[in-house]
Amino acid sequence: MKVLVLGAGQLARMMALASKPLNIEVRAFDVGSNQVVDPLSTSVVYGDLSSGIEFADAITAEFEHISHDVLAQCQASGKLFPSSQAIKTGGDRRLEKALLEETSVANATHKVVASKAEFDQALSSLTLPLILKSALAGYDGKGQWRLKDKSQAEAIWQDIEAFIAGDKSGQAQAVVIEQMVPFDREVSMVGVRSPNGETCAYPLTENHHTNGVLSVSLALDEHQTLQQQASAAFDKIANALDYVGVLAIEFFQVGDSLLVNEIAPRVHNSGHWTQQGADTCQFENHIRAVCQLPLGSASLVRPTAMINILGTDTVPNSILAIPSVTVHWYGKSKRAGRKMGHINVCGQDKNELFSRLKQLAQQLPAQDFPEVADYVNQL
Amino acid sequence: MKVLVLGAGQLARMMALASKPLNIEVRAFDVGSNQVVDPLSTSVVYGDLSSGIEFADAITAEFEHISHDVLAQCQASGKLFPSSQAIKTGGDRRLEKALLEETSVANATHKVVASKAEFDQALSSLTLPLILKSALAGYDGKGQWRLKDKSQAEAIWQDIEAFIAGDKSGQAQAVVIEQMVPFDREVSMVGVRSPNGETCAYPLTENHHTNGVLSVSLALDEHQTLQQQASAAFDKIANALDYVGVLAIEFFQVGDSLLVNEIAPRVHNSGHWTQQGADTCQFENHIRAVCQLPLGSASLVRPTAMINILGTDTVPNSILAIPSVTVHWYGKSKRAGRKMGHINVCGQDKNELFSRLKQLAQQLPAQDFPEVADYVNQL
Repeated sequence: MKVLVLGAGQLARMMALASKPLNIEVRAFDVGSNQVVDPLSTSVVYGDLSSGIEFADAITAEFEHISHDVLAQCQASGKLFPSSQAIKTGGDRRLEKALLEETSVANATHKVVASKAEFDQALSSLTLPLILKSALAGYDGKGQWRLKDKSQAEAIWQDIEAFIAGDKSGQAQAVVIEQMVPFDREVSMVGVRSPNGETCAYPLTENHHTNGVLSVSLALDEHQTLQQQASAAFDKIANALDYVGVLAIEFFQVGDSLLVNEIAPRVHNSGHWTQQGADTCQFENHIRAVCQLPLGSASLVRPTAMINILGTDTVPNSILAIPSVTVHWYGKSKRAGRKMGHINVCGQDKNELFSRLKQLAQQLPAQDFPEVADYVNQL
Repeated sequence: MKVLVLGAGQLARMMALASKPLNIEVRAFDVGSNQVVDPLSTSVVYGDLSSGIEFADAITAEFEHISHDVLAQCQASGKLFPSSQAIKTGGDRRLEKALLEETSVANATHKVVASKAEFDQALSSLTLPLILKSALAGYDGKGQWRLKDKSQAEAIWQDIEAFIAGDKSGQAQAVVIEQMVPFDREVSMVGVRSPNGETCAYPLTENHHTNGVLSVSLALDEHQTLQQQASAAFDKIANALDYVGVLAIEFFQVGDSLLVNEIAPRVHNSGHWTQQGADTCQFENHIRAVCQLPLGSASLVRPTAMINILGTDTVPNSILAIPSVTVHWYGKSKRAGRKMGHINVCGQDKNELFSRLKQLAQQLPAQDFPEVADYVNQL
């Protein structure tokens, strides 16, 4: 089997690594250069998308902000999984919110606004504080604003107008305004759905963000009530999209309830722990699904944590001596804040995991891993 | 870091897969074509060994039957780990037996013979039945004879003479004659040693062979007395060789004692279970050692079995639906008896593993996996 991934970043690379043992060849379409590359060697294989489509038995994506032209071309080949509609839904908060409403999956109270008049109207009907997110191309804290006091409204609207004016997607922009959820914690779940509708959900992870970017994920599999809610939400969303592959859902936990924050129609950073902590990792399961192979078990093998490596290309070698620590570099050149790699660590039980995590956090330089030690030490 | 592997087969490929996340680039020297290839894409990178040596920060090997010229050239670069002497010891049963004697590691009573006179003398001093093995280039049942009755001696010697005459190694051949050990089972251990002398041993595996080739390995980690004996043997052998990297030792178990059958100065088929069953797989630990990185824990995560895929390039897709089943193909073209891939399967405990193994064996075609079901069903 041969798979083309739209996007040539670390997710395509990790899909390729998971595919090699299955004798499945993965190529990646770099949307920047319009070239098809081998995600492992990064060498160019084809000079255009059409050749990549022809090469592939199945096409999938590693991100949701893909031009509609590219999606249309792939969809027309009949090989794209998940569908272009599912990918677009993940890339447009308007579609995402409409899907959540349509499937009756709990999410934050919100309004979609595209003009000053709608903005003013939304402000009068929603309860502060609010979080405003651009409908298109905003993630990891970009294209987001927080409105805590009505006095900020004018300045924020000007910012939003400038952001919309600077949008180069060629699509109509808008902003989704949500009532900020007083959540206890942020959790997420990756799950996988096969072409015949079988679904399989991984255990929920607890996520810690630093400056709007995921820094630590923790997979313990201890809250069965929450897990059932999350799995039910996954099934509703994935079935409504006739989804094929891995889909991630981020939730706010409020008491014993989960509200969907957002969905991502792809393998997800908060699922990287599955490489060491689950029966089948998310990358292999995604590839299995799009290649119409049986899904693998998503069970937790043992409690596992993931720490993101952001903006640095070195970690102390000494951390490799901590049992079960596995470092995953993405082979990228260093840039401030860039996702450069991640570290997985496991334990036979929660206590062993936490003890190893603390040992690990102690050895990671605080300037490169801000808040990680604080978060880990309170576990 | 950059590593050159002597040999471009599945072991180099799996080392390359384990190295990618560490940002370590692996190239493989194909001794057949004298070219250096990327073991993942199989594309040619360099046309000769010298360029491969220049590329590398460290050089290692995936097999022990390497021409002495190649070993000498690599050794001279100062980058070869383990040393050419260690590799040669694994490739020559004379050196191997001498090492075991020198380190007082228990092994079968034996004689080395290179002439008819020595052969006759050995036969008069050893107790039948005997197993005769060529000193050079014999493994997986090749270059081996069994002598159960003195009446076979003449015919076997003629066979041996023909085998020696056909040897193309350019080195003096000989035969090691061993008293056959009435063993209870065959077990093996992979362990790893770092340049500074630190060692780390994986749990023993029980091995089942079919027609002289490994078919199933079982890692349960339940016999601590045997494990201690095996670890002690590993330390003696690895220290005597000033070994760097993963080394495998095959043992005969007789009652509560282990006798060394043979050693292999490399990652080993009976260690493939570590990819899913151990804290750090043998491939990553070998690369860590030769790159002077800290060794990873070799602890068993959960009971794991490995089944070799020999001579066939398909297995039923349905086996992927069995929880924790992972299939590893080597990307090779089919040939009778060829090692084409392997299947790993794990369980939270021994019972779960055995139940999954039985389920798996039931789905594997008996003609492609002879004896596997019989072996698995008696567990």
